[in-house]
Order: sequence, then structure tokens, then C-alpha cells
Amino acid sequence: MERKKIAIVGVGLIGGSLALQLNEKGMAAGIIGVEKSSEHATRAVELGLVDEVLPLEEAIERSEVVILAVPVDQMVALLPKVLDLVTNQIVFDAGSTKEQMINAVSGHPKRGRYVATHPMWGTEYSGPQAAVKNAFENKAVVLCNTAESDADAVEWTRFAYKKIGMHLLEMNAVAHDLHAAYVSHISHITSFALANTVLEKEREDQAIFELASGGFESTVRLAKSNPAMWVPIFMQNRDNVLDVLNEHISQLRKFKSCLEKENYDYLQELIENANRIRRILG
Amino acid sequence: MERKKIAIVGVGLIGGSLALQLNEKGMAAGIIGVEKSSEHATRAVELGLVDEVLPLEEAIERSEVVILAVPVDQMVALLPKVLDLVTNQIVFDAGSTKEQMINAVSGHPKRGRYVATHPMWGTEYSGPQAAVKNAFENKAVVLCNTAESDADAVEWTRFAYKKIGMHLLEMNAVAHDLHAAYVSHISHITSFALANTVLEKEREDQAIFELASGGFESTVRLAKSNPAMWVPIFMQNRDNVLDVLNEHISQLRKFKSCLEKENYDYLQELIENANRIRRILG
Repeated sequence: MERKKIAIVGVGLIGGSLALQLNEKGMAAGIIGVEKSSEHATRAVELGLVDEVLPLEEAIERSEVVILAVPVDQMVALLPKVLDLVTNQIVFDAGSTKEQMINAVSGHPKRGRYVATHPMWGTEYSGPQAAVKNAFENKAVVLCNTAESDADAVEWTRFAYKKIGMHLLEMNAVAHDLHAAYVSHISHITSFALANTVLEKEREDQAIFELASGGFESTVRLAKSNPAMWVPIFMQNRDNVLDVLNEHISQLRKFKSCLEKENYDYLQELIENANRIRRILG
Repeated sequence: MERKKIAIVGVGLIGGSLALQLNEKGMAAGIIGVEKSSEHATRAVELGLVDEVLPLEEAIERSEVVILAVPVDQMVALLPKVLDLVTNQIVFDAGSTKEQMINAVSGHPKRGRYVATHPMWGTEYSGPQAAVKNAFENKAVVLCNTAESDADAVEWTRFAYKKIGMHLLEMNAVAHDLHAAYVSHISHITSFALANTVLEKEREDQAIFELASGGFESTVRLAKSNPAMWVPIFMQNRDNVLDVLNEHISQLRKFKSCLEKENYDYLQELIENANRIRRILG
């Protein structure tokens, strides 16, 4: 399938890493960045993530594919404007929520040009300097409500994600947002709360620094994540996140109750049940 | 400092990895294993972790250093018996709790031969097949209440841990157990509870398997850990773990309250506060 001229709106961790990987895999006939922050724009060009940075309208006009990789609150506002500007370009987004995105352009005359996607990869860092090579490989990308998109747009989007090494899944946006709350969003909440717990209890930074083991680092790593990205995700997926957060608090209360009552047989059972995650994650 | 004949009691993840690393760094003039499980004993010899497996008494008699690496409930019972058997051997343990261990041998005529240590490294796997090379490197080891131990025992123990690449910290057992609850034990509780949450909510194993991102895997990884090791740790460090678990539940409730009340400014603040962990972990 032919390589295309690509515009990437938001050249941060996700947009920048997509740029690197699309170039690497020969999918891009040039990449134009669109970037609000002039500092990020300069860095993105310096780092070779994009060939140049242009205003949104000009970038869309000169491209065949437009990829949106901004925080999901901005994305909901941006997506209809982008569709207003496209003629025949393919548009897809990389946002972590899908229902509000799809609702925002429901009935738009250019709805067909848009493919709702969520490539499930990220790190706790942000900005163009956080972009890394070989990102996305062997990770899942979810495509939502593809029946509402034009066949050629879906086809190229699928092809591009396959080329960069992702395995494709399709589901409707409602199901996506539910599953994303379970396997991604709740992990971030627990990690943020764990960091706050330790920062509250352990007043000796030096002790954390010196004693922190690999286990602590892995559970608290996500707590470094950018609020500008995560607050809008939690807003847009509020009901699902609240539901799973309530369940999580009640699971933690079971551990608390075991300890309070010194019911160590039940504690053993709770841990054995948790071990079942091995069956799934290997 | 001279290499010594070493007995390792419990040749699993920790004991086995210590055996590999002590051999690698030239600290061992032979390693004898002591292992209740005949299956693990056979594996430990097959894997070359130990030269042979012998009964406890014989192993101690033929060694200059005895390292205890069994679950902490067994350790508390075992330690006084080991001290009953030693003449001039150095004894140290690798347990994740220290106060009960030290109390168990307070006033023992051979108390001086024992050095209470906690090398802060581990993985979520267990058994001799889980032993890995180069474990412990660049991690912290805590030595507790060293004033109660003989100088020569502390000296060799310190030297051995330095040789295998660990940085040494000293603190009293009460402080150790408190800090360990903050930077290690709570991470395991949150991870077990997160696994149970997702297994409870997400009835589609396939969805977890396919969608699980790096973030999910890193927060839930510890949930694979062995209950035989962790239940006794939580028992022995119950008060500290309960204290930090209560704080953690109250931190999670703040996230819940933000979402319920749609107070996204406060949510932003909570996440910014969690980001302070960057300052400590880099």
C-alpha cells in the first residue's frame, strides 16, 4: 500500500513515537507536525520527528492522512474542526477514550473519513523528547465502530498499524471504554494513590530513594504520568473508572479486614485468587 | 577476605540467587543446600545452585557461614534452633521482616553469631528454577541491630553483600519494618488487590490478555507473588502494613470523591502531588 503524506497533530510522547515508527516502517511520504507549544515544535523538528511544523489548516491541506495525538479533552473539540477542514484525507486519533470522540462527530458530513483508534502503548513520560523508537510493537490497537468509517480509510489505518507491529482488535466504543478502565485507567489511579500514600507516610525521601525495590518502582512508575493527559481521560471515562475504583477499594478492604481480624486463611485465599492473573499474563 | 564454606537453608528464589551470586563473586568455598522439598533439592543440585543438599545439622557442622532464606514464619522458628547448633559459624537471614526475627533470639547465648539482614531484591517467581544470575546488584541491603552481633560476623556479612554489588544501610529492626511496609509490602497488597479487582470486573480473560498494556502489567506483576512467602510477611508486619493500607484506602477515596463530585481541579492536584515521586525515583 502506498506511503502517504502525514500530518501529526500533537507531537508529544504518542505523536512523536508514531512519527518515528511510521517513518521507520516506510509508511510516510513526509510528516508535518502541528504543535501548539513553540518549544515542543522546535524540539520535534530538532529531534527529526517531523520535517516541519505548520498551522493546522495548512498541514491538513498538504496531507493525505491526519493523526490526532493530543489530550482527549482537546481531541473532542478538535476532531469536528478537523473534519470540517478535510476533503478526502484519512483522519484517525490515538486517544485513550473513544465514546466521546465518536459522539463528537456523529452525523458530521465527513464522519466517514474518521477512524477511531487507540494504540495501547505509552510510558510515564511526555513531550517530544519522550518519543522512542520501536514503540507500539507487539502491542494492541483497538479500532472502534469501523462500520461508520469509509472502507478506504479503515483499510489504510489497519495497514499502517500492522506495519508498525501492532495487533488489531475491533470493538464498539462503549466496550472499549469499559475494558480500558479495567486494564489501563485503574492502574494509573492505583499508582497515583500509592505514590501519594508513600509520600504522605514516608517523610524521609532518602529512605524511599535508598530502599525502593524493583517491586515498588514497578507499581509506582505510572504515578509519574502527566496530569494534562490523565485528568481528561478520567473525566471522559468517569462512570467506568468510578465503577472499577469502587470495586478496587472494596478489594483492598478485604485485605484490611483479614489483617484486622488476623484471618490469615482468607488472606491466603485472596492472594491465591490474585495469582490467577498468571494464567492470563503468563 | 577469605572465601568460606556456606550453607544455604531454603534454596528458592532468594537462596538460589544468593548461591549463584556468591559463587560468581568468589565468596564461596563450596555451597551446601538445606531444603525441605525433595523436588526443590533435586532441582537445586541439577541447576548447579548448590554442590549438595544435606540435613540441617550436618550442613551447619560442615559450614562456616549459614544463610537462612525460608519464609519468615519458618525463619522465626528456625533461627533459635540454628543458633543452638552453631559453634562459631556466622549466621544471617534474608527475611523481609526483622523485628520478630531479632526478638526470637534475644538473649540466646549465640546471639552474637547472628546478623539480621534484608537484601531488598526479589521477583514475583519462586523456587530454585526462579533463581537468576546477577541478582541483588545495585540494590539495597539493610543490616539491623548490628551492635548485638559479633564484630567478625558483621564484618564478613558486610563484605559479602558489598561483593555481590549491594549498597549497605544500617537501621534498627523497628525502623526497618516500618520502611519496608512503605516501600515494599504495600506495593504487594495493592497489586494483589488490583489483580482481584480486574479478575472480578473483567470476566473476559481474553480481553485482559489482548489489551493489557505495559502499564497494567507493571502494576499487576507483583500479584503473581507466592502466598507462602507473603502471608507470613503481612502477619509479622501487621501493624505497619495496616497503618499504610488505611492511608492508601483514604488516598484512593480522594480520587473517588473527585470523580463523584466532578472536582477535576482537585484531581489535577492529586496527580501533581503523585508526580513528586519523580523527584525521588528519577
